[in-house]
Amino acid sequence: MTYCLGIITESGIVMASDSRTNAGVDYISTYLKLFDFSLTGERVILISTSGNLSITQWVITELKKDLKIAEDNNHNLHTIPTLYEIARYVGGKIRQILEKDRSWLQKDRIDTGCSILLGGQIKGQEPELFLIYAQGNCISATKETPFLQIGETKYGKPILDRALSFYTSLEAAAKCALVSIDSTMKSNLSVGPPINLIMYEKDTFEIRHRLQMRLGDPYLAKVRKLWEVALKEALDEMPDLNWSYNCQESQEDILID
Amino acid sequence: MTYCLGIITESGIVMASDSRTNAGVDYISTYLKLFDFSLTGERVILISTSGNLSITQWVITELKKDLKIAEDNNHNLHTIPTLYEIARYVGGKIRQILEKDRSWLQKDRIDTGCSILLGGQIKGQEPELFLIYAQGNCISATKETPFLQIGETKYGKPILDRALSFYTSLEAAAKCALVSIDSTMKSNLSVGPPINLIMYEKDTFEIRHRLQMRLGDPYLAKVRKLWEVALKEALDEMPDLNWSYNCQESQEDILID
Repeated sequence: MTYCLGIITESGIVMASDSRTNAGVDYISTYLKLFDFSLTGERVILISTSGNLSITQWVITELKKDLKIAEDNNHNLHTIPTLYEIARYVGGKIRQILEKDRSWLQKDRIDTGCSILLGGQIKGQEPELFLIYAQGNCISATKETPFLQIGETKYGKPILDRALSFYTSLEAAAKCALVSIDSTMKSNLSVGPPINLIMYEKDTFEIRHRLQMRLGDPYLAKVRKLWEVALKEALDEMPDLNWSYNCQESQEDILID
Repeated sequence: MTYCLGIITESGIVMASDSRTNAGVDYISTYLKLFDFSLTGERVILISTSGNLSITQWVITELKKDLKIAEDNNHNLHTIPTLYEIARYVGGKIRQILEKDRSWLQKDRIDTGCSILLGGQIKGQEPELFLIYAQGNCISATKETPFLQIGETKYGKPILDRALSFYTSLEAAAKCALVSIDSTMKSNLSVGPPINLIMYEKDTFEIRHRLQMRLGDPYLAKVRKLWEVALKEALDEMPDLNWSYNCQESQEDILID
């Protein structure tokens, strides 16, 4: 499994991913799932991947190959004019690859599912964040729903639903992404470190903030500890449950015998 | 969908459930999923259900029917001597019912999955909490894993993983259950109010604390508000991310072009 998420706010983009890949619980390995294809000063292009590893690695290989072709009019991550068109171009790569491999994988009932997050900004345009499906189509994050997730999405969603909006500061959004991934790692063994995190400040066209937290990273351990203490305190400070206020009514509803 | 959970601590048991049932997103209705079969002074028996409603309702019907049979030596929720045997008895009901209905439901590929939580205490014994599977077998909660969930379990698990232990106070465990259900309701429309909550204090052999929160319940709205504020504050108070401390290292790992 994998867990990657992207957040877009009024001040930029945060992308984060775990690094665990597993073929059953008895075969776990570490693969990078967050890729930076930026062209400093011109455009920021961040991509993270989840799903069938042979397919997503092939997509990344194709994207890199296109970047090396010297021809004029070559369509690649550095020449395509808008992020939406880049999302469709990446979706097209998935389609081409699945056309080649799908029937072979399906013979052995191997899951061909995959999905990709694309975040970034091209000079003269606003930052954007897309989720590209295995079918090659895509959706974009909006002010109302300023985050997109791929992979094992459920454990890490409540914190995003509660604490995040388009107007959250970028630093708080990065911390929120970290807690979201840490919550997922705590509940699902198939999501694991290192965690890769990138924070992009709008209109800088340069990645100035990135970090990787490995297993046993002291900051991550501290975050986990502080978060648990904060949740327990928040529970303690919650007003007492008013057990009696509708006891009679609910008793009638619930009591059976 | 459904979300029910049970928590066992050194001082008692908390059981909670939502009340939404849906056959597709276009057919949502309200059904009670938490049932109290206690015999005050003698034994506390709490049951919550998830999965195929026709099956779980039939199970509850059978449990009630057995309670009404006046014969001596009748096996029912009030006469079976231990909670473990009650769990196996309830599992046996699921098996009998599935034997009758499974082939008919499977003809139309209808999911026959269901699961049941059983919590309680019989005089002279310790409180116990069981999860009974659709196959009729069961597992029990332990000191190390003091909670069990059925239905839509993922959204509400992180708060339990972080804030709960066997030594948590019963009142804090009840609040934790409430937040766990509220987190699930916020992320999954097919889990919804009213929320039913029961708190049982060990060795009292009586349910003294129960409540039902309907849609728009002011306490629930307050809890949600306070929880969101607490999470945001906890994020703000987290130490700043140390972006530079391993930037070079991670840059080599991540940078592609």
